[in-house]
Amino acid sequence: MCGVRPVCVIGLGLIGGSLLRAASESGRQAWGFTTSTVDADAATVDGFQVESRVDGALRLAAQRDAIVVIAVPLPAVDQTLAAITAYAPECVLTDVVSVKGPVEMSVRQGAPRTRYVGGHPMAGTASSGWAAGSAGLFKDASWVLTVEDETDLDAWRDVARLVLDCGAQIVPASAAGHDDAVARISHLPHLLAAVLAAVGADGGSLSLALAAGSYSDGTRVAGTRPELVRAMCEGNRGPLLDAVDDALGRLGAARGALASTGSLGATVEAGHQGWQALQNYRTAERPHSRIDLSAPDTRETLLALGERGGRIVGLDGDFALTG
Amino acid sequence: MCGVRPVCVIGLGLIGGSLLRAASESGRQAWGFTTSTVDADAATVDGFQVESRVDGALRLAAQRDAIVVIAVPLPAVDQTLAAITAYAPECVLTDVVSVKGPVEMSVRQGAPRTRYVGGHPMAGTASSGWAAGSAGLFKDASWVLTVEDETDLDAWRDVARLVLDCGAQIVPASAAGHDDAVARISHLPHLLAAVLAAVGADGGSLSLALAAGSYSDGTRVAGTRPELVRAMCEGNRGPLLDAVDDALGRLGAARGALASTGSLGATVEAGHQGWQALQNYRTAERPHSRIDLSAPDTRETLLALGERGGRIVGLDGDFALTG
Repeated sequence: MCGVRPVCVIGLGLIGGSLLRAASESGRQAWGFTTSTVDADAATVDGFQVESRVDGALRLAAQRDAIVVIAVPLPAVDQTLAAITAYAPECVLTDVVSVKGPVEMSVRQGAPRTRYVGGHPMAGTASSGWAAGSAGLFKDASWVLTVEDETDLDAWRDVARLVLDCGAQIVPASAAGHDDAVARISHLPHLLAAVLAAVGADGGSLSLALAAGSYSDGTRVAGTRPELVRAMCEGNRGPLLDAVDDALGRLGAARGALASTGSLGATVEAGHQGWQALQNYRTAERPHSRIDLSAPDTRETLLALGERGGRIVGLDGDFALTG
Repeated sequence: MCGVRPVCVIGLGLIGGSLLRAASESGRQAWGFTTSTVDADAATVDGFQVESRVDGALRLAAQRDAIVVIAVPLPAVDQTLAAITAYAPECVLTDVVSVKGPVEMSVRQGAPRTRYVGGHPMAGTASSGWAAGSAGLFKDASWVLTVEDETDLDAWRDVARLVLDCGAQIVPASAAGHDDAVARISHLPHLLAAVLAAVGADGGSLSLALAAGSYSDGTRVAGTRPELVRAMCEGNRGPLLDAVDDALGRLGAARGALASTGSLGATVEAGHQGWQALQNYRTAERPHSRIDLSAPDTRETLLALGERGGRIVGLDGDFALTG
């Protein structure tokens, strides 16, 4: 089936709840399920369709050929996949979990007949739960959709349309490429913030009295709920270890240079160049082009787009529009 | 002499220029000197008194018993001290350099007859030069004034009054205590930002495409001009090495735990507690008290106030008011 599929969202926290709202607002038929009675009641009061049982939600998905979205924390994914295999075993499936390799592996083992496309919206707030969500959460955000050898490209296009309907832009990546990237730009920042906050606090009240912008900014995400940081970072162990080793190597080299020559030139210059690279990326013009989603080399074309930081901003029949 | 002294500012960049403006606005007689013709011209156009030669500025300071403020970068301090010894050898002297131990030592060697009180306003912007300054830059900022065995407490009170006139609050500290604190809450954050920016950029365009708030915040100060970061960090070598060792130890422990047990619990919890300590410090009620600046144990009392994160917010005759 082509066209606009209904959406069944399992898990109605910040991300799942925002997705249910955004999909509904775009005109799709959408419903959800959550094990949290607080979130279920709040979503119902807000006028959304919330099924009381997961089997009911998934049976409906099978009947209506809906996209099923897994929006539960990583430790609850396997249980959700078991229910999907029982009640909607061949559905188009995506997820919004912050790590992609482990979910990909769980799907292959636990729900092998689904047409799965891994997803990760790069959006969030410090708060959680249905009440913290909004239909606009994904506006202009990057949203990774995975491309693997096994990916069904019709399903990929269906999920891509949902992501665009939510207001986000699609960054295609392999599961491994995604996990390496988020280790560097999300999980390592959380670890360094934790380390900095601990070293600063070890300096006592005098240190805290003198803390200004560099310290506040550098420690801000240490205010995130510890269980969320742990779930995110521990779930991406291999790639995060690589990123931590890079950081340890660079910090150790800075230490050695400061102790021996007194110079931090190499460290500070490399950091400034890295900062400049982000500014350049963010201000660069992105070329508009069209990717034929029915061409034989579509997977390679999509992955190459993501590798060079490109995004898909629209769909036109069989074509993805970049920009 | 007690009362309100005139102010002679040597160096009219961001901090010196803001100090000249703030001191003038508070009603003090104030003038300056700078080797930068750009800054000198801009300050003159803005209506401030700028002497064309350093000897002229300092002779005036000696005649009028002014507070001389060294507002030049650390590498230019010794040269400025030589001029002070030549033209205003017994002045009340302070500085705004971001490290205090090395300046203290330079003053003892290069201008031993001055009545020196080390200073460091915890304020700044990403920009530099006269044009970037403003009279309001120091509003409610913390401003360290050093207390050492040699400190002349009459001079300390005179400099304290100038700091309060600029709108800041005084944190008393030893030079060593200050340098240890800023290594933790200013210099280490700059190094970690540089390391993170380099590791992120190493991930290529895909990583930059996925970078969101945690990465932007964690790398923001890597945008500071490299020569400023180097001057600041390299000038505080010993204490910064200690802080880097703390960070390396904590990051190495996190790496070990993640690799062996898969848990980041200890790291993330310690970081969250450190973050909480800063919030607690910032929202705490500060007790109002009075410190007798003529008492025999004044130095100890001032240092104890700073150690517990206290501030001086006013002066009343011989008394400093905390809050």
